[in-house]
Amino acid sequence: MEDSQTEISSLGEFGLIDRLTKEFPLKNESTKKGVGDDAAILRYGDKDVLVTTDLLLEGIHFDLRYVPLKHLGYKAAIVNFSDVYAMNGTPRQITVSLGVSSRFTVEHLEQLYSGIRLACELYGVDLVGGDTSASVTGLVISITCLGEGRPEDVVTRTGAKPTDIICVSGDLGAAFMGLQLLERENAVAAGQKDFQPDFAGKEYILERQLKPEARRDIVEALRKEGIKPTSMIDVSDGLSSELLHICKDSGVGCRVYEDRIPIDYQTALMAEEFNMNLVTAAMNGGEDYELLFTVPITDNEKIEKMKGVTMIGYVTEPQLGAALVTRDGGEIPIKAQGWNAFREDSQN
Amino acid sequence: MEDSQTEISSLGEFGLIDRLTKEFPLKNESTKKGVGDDAAILRYGDKDVLVTTDLLLEGIHFDLRYVPLKHLGYKAAIVNFSDVYAMNGTPRQITVSLGVSSRFTVEHLEQLYSGIRLACELYGVDLVGGDTSASVTGLVISITCLGEGRPEDVVTRTGAKPTDIICVSGDLGAAFMGLQLLERENAVAAGQKDFQPDFAGKEYILERQLKPEARRDIVEALRKEGIKPTSMIDVSDGLSSELLHICKDSGVGCRVYEDRIPIDYQTALMAEEFNMNLVTAAMNGGEDYELLFTVPITDNEKIEKMKGVTMIGYVTEPQLGAALVTRDGGEIPIKAQGWNAFREDSQN
Repeated sequence: MEDSQTEISSLGEFGLIDRLTKEFPLKNESTKKGVGDDAAILRYGDKDVLVTTDLLLEGIHFDLRYVPLKHLGYKAAIVNFSDVYAMNGTPRQITVSLGVSSRFTVEHLEQLYSGIRLACELYGVDLVGGDTSASVTGLVISITCLGEGRPEDVVTRTGAKPTDIICVSGDLGAAFMGLQLLERENAVAAGQKDFQPDFAGKEYILERQLKPEARRDIVEALRKEGIKPTSMIDVSDGLSSELLHICKDSGVGCRVYEDRIPIDYQTALMAEEFNMNLVTAAMNGGEDYELLFTVPITDNEKIEKMKGVTMIGYVTEPQLGAALVTRDGGEIPIKAQGWNAFREDSQN
Repeated sequence: MEDSQTEISSLGEFGLIDRLTKEFPLKNESTKKGVGDDAAILRYGDKDVLVTTDLLLEGIHFDLRYVPLKHLGYKAAIVNFSDVYAMNGTPRQITVSLGVSSRFTVEHLEQLYSGIRLACELYGVDLVGGDTSASVTGLVISITCLGEGRPEDVVTRTGAKPTDIICVSGDLGAAFMGLQLLERENAVAAGQKDFQPDFAGKEYILERQLKPEARRDIVEALRKEGIKPTSMIDVSDGLSSELLHICKDSGVGCRVYEDRIPIDYQTALMAEEFNMNLVTAAMNGGEDYELLFTVPITDNEKIEKMKGVTMIGYVTEPQLGAALVTRDGGEIPIKAQGWNAFREDSQN
């Protein structure tokens, strides 16, 4: 039994999921789409029910030395809502399961739940269930979110067509730079009593890391303009990784322009301070929870007028592959360097 | 912040859930019932969608020294299906999230998934999503199950009425005795090389612990007989605990007869070998995944004819409380001594 064992890190997260789930044929009429998008699509009655789930583990996904529990609860809910919006749906219900070690008190969990509650209030989502248990080490948070969409509205990753415009909401790389800042200040603080980090002028990147929002406003604005994206995904693992998902699942290529990638000036300043490549941070940082989507070129004018949306490139025939067009007109193939919880060495 | 901290164990699992979820008002039309039953009830289109979730943590819920990964996967799926059947529904979809530490290989996870796959095949359930991540220590399994039911069929814990008959499927206490056996053999094995435990004649209690089934057959038989239970719950934490849930949620009392509690002879033999009180094991052992339900007294004759169902007592007015009627005619108040992952000391 123990001969020929394969290290999980050799497959990566997506490779592992492919291998584990490939032998699960779908059997139910109510299952329209299973593994492989931001959310599964189920059909109950005349509604599409969207289902997504996230598992957050202490020491892997969050560090309680600098993440307040309330923020953690808020973010844990938001990342699930974001997946439902990325299907062009509306989040409706969540279940929250917790594993908690003995160092946590009821008051700690109340802080965590106050963040979950705030997110639920702001996004109109109901908490409908969960499971709570002791854990041997650390905090485990598992959230499943159900959303709703009219079948004719739901958007997957599979519909991008050559000549479609590629758009992204907000700006990228800020959450990643916020994390770098928090980790540096935490390391500095470790050696000093009463250390007070100076976060002045860096509020935006910190907020992007600690208290991200899901882009309901973009989904609503698109609906108001009568635009249905041909494909959509949320940027959780980094723009590069998400572009490759759309290209693979839609069977297309893409060109994205370096000088069109939206980046906030705080992100740029921080990258300079850390002597990091800004475009790499924006392309691969992840945790942006912005929406990446494609629209027919005929929606060009409508998109141009929309606030908070940037056209960053266009969809091509598949044989052209996925590439970043640099400022000097060169082309660099896009590779997924997104955050990988199984990767043994960081490769930024 | 740190003053006046409350130990989680002082509230217990249900007290903790009450406290954390009480300030979450339901906002969506599609949410019919949130926290507080075997599954949440959502209404999408003309269907009730049932949602339940379970979090299983290594070192708390399972011990890989004597639980094969395939069995663990099977059981992790089954316990969720059982919750949907306990609502008189049919499980349709699951999501599976895993946290895995570095000692696990791809082949280990394939074993785990082969058990999940077998359960999905036998019960006609689709795997539709999940999340997979590294973990710092041990294995984390979080499964969410969606089920379907016609609104007129779905059964909660709230409808039991005085004079209703209390029924339970199968037999009780076997999974608990199976666990005792596995733990003893594991302790013995620890000191010996090439130790071979002798499980002859104990196959049933081991199977009840390692490879439980969900009682789809009972739900189908009830439907065939035209019986709709007035309340139903699955026996996961022990008969005592589940009886109290029904009594509390239905606002009733109950009388259950000690000599009517169904117990397999292997369970009885094992209890004797361990010098344990058999009725205590059957009332409080848990992990039986049998169905406990109440039916109107007019269904008496139909129930009598059903295979695999035992009438164990009746529902009373609330002021009579919940009591076990002993063989000598005495009454002992029923207390929840169910398994509690937060309890610091076992109190059997």
